[in-house]
Amino acid sequence: MPKLIHYPLCPFSRSIRLALAECGIDAELEEERPWLWRRVFLELNPAGTLPVLQDDDGNALAGTYAVSEYLSDTGVDASPDSRAFAFFPGGAKERGEVRRLVDWFHGKFEAEVTSYLLEEKVYRRFDSRNGGAPDMELVRAGKANLRYHLRYIGHLVDERNWLAGQHLSYADLAAAAHLSCIDYLGDVPWDEDDVARDWYARIKSRPSFRPLLGDRIAGITPPESYADPDF
Amino acid sequence: MPKLIHYPLCPFSRSIRLALAECGIDAELEEERPWLWRRVFLELNPAGTLPVLQDDDGNALAGTYAVSEYLSDTGVDASPDSRAFAFFPGGAKERGEVRRLVDWFHGKFEAEVTSYLLEEKVYRRFDSRNGGAPDMELVRAGKANLRYHLRYIGHLVDERNWLAGQHLSYADLAAAAHLSCIDYLGDVPWDEDDVARDWYARIKSRPSFRPLLGDRIAGITPPESYADPDF
Repeated sequence: MPKLIHYPLCPFSRSIRLALAECGIDAELEEERPWLWRRVFLELNPAGTLPVLQDDDGNALAGTYAVSEYLSDTGVDASPDSRAFAFFPGGAKERGEVRRLVDWFHGKFEAEVTSYLLEEKVYRRFDSRNGGAPDMELVRAGKANLRYHLRYIGHLVDERNWLAGQHLSYADLAAAAHLSCIDYLGDVPWDEDDVARDWYARIKSRPSFRPLLGDRIAGITPPESYADPDF
Repeated sequence: MPKLIHYPLCPFSRSIRLALAECGIDAELEEERPWLWRRVFLELNPAGTLPVLQDDDGNALAGTYAVSEYLSDTGVDASPDSRAFAFFPGGAKERGEVRRLVDWFHGKFEAEVTSYLLEEKVYRRFDSRNGGAPDMELVRAGKANLRYHLRYIGHLVDERNWLAGQHLSYADLAAAAHLSCIDYLGDVPWDEDDVARDWYARIKSRPSFRPLLGDRIAGITPPESYADPDF
């Protein structure tokens, strides 16, 4: 059984956990706290980023980009056992649009929203070398940016069925993974955009999402709405 | 003929210019200054990032990730006319290693080195809303980080032939694209690592690299060594 080294409130890890579940692949989960920079972990991934997927022979694939494209390359998403999820469905152009949006959420959304909120409210809490109270100016900046990202999600879903087109893709899982981390902190203003909220409700009710809704971080209790499909 | 919307000192644009040349694909170049956030450009790529590849029908592929995987998906890199360059050569695992390193340079190296130096020394110079003298603390941080990245390149090339393995890959082009921008500013301490320097000399002497060595930005003259294959 493959092993996924992850952190429960890491959006990159969550996106791969969702994808593995959509593909019907069981993986053993091993928690890593990336702010510790443990030598044994850096030997697996010198970049120090999560997630890392390790196969039974110990071979490691490091980072969301390598892992998602590897799973797509090896065709596990198209296996007959799966629920017909494909990371990058469609022809070359449609796949380009999925990847543009994966980049949007794992790159732009991460830089403008998730990194601020997770750094200040979660990582800083546990990192003794970098600890202290959250910088509320950064928290406010992340929350302000989140509003326009929610409207962008609403705009896309309004024109399409899922973010990148007619089919669920890795772009949806990436976006939902980031939002789910922020939702754990109670910081998503769902009233901002009804279409975005409906899209999230559709993903949240998928069986692949259930394990994420059961995650708990010591010392940080999510709001009740976090695990409620009718939030 | 496809059109590549780029900026001469943008490392992402440069990596795709190199790749197109390695594949033997001619593309018309159109310069965009990303700090202007022009509406007409944001309609093509709402993220505002470069490069954007437009085909003859006006379809746009936005961002390095979508463009590189699209070109690989459509197999132009494996065409008999090309110089046998492949973006992601090898089997699924080898391709995973290429992608890990693409992520390293377009993600980590960009965040720790290139973004500091280009923002402070180039973009800030031209951006009237954000102008002023460079923040020398950020410049120094970028230069300090660059040293360990050079040693990492040396370490990888010492064990392999190219960065990700036996074959030239998009990881080499991504890394060389970032270094070439910094080299234009005269800020690469090549004495730090001889293996890294030799690797860069090998890439710099490829025909695909020649157009980059001819780039000039108004008001910023590169050092003579910039265009010299025996730097």
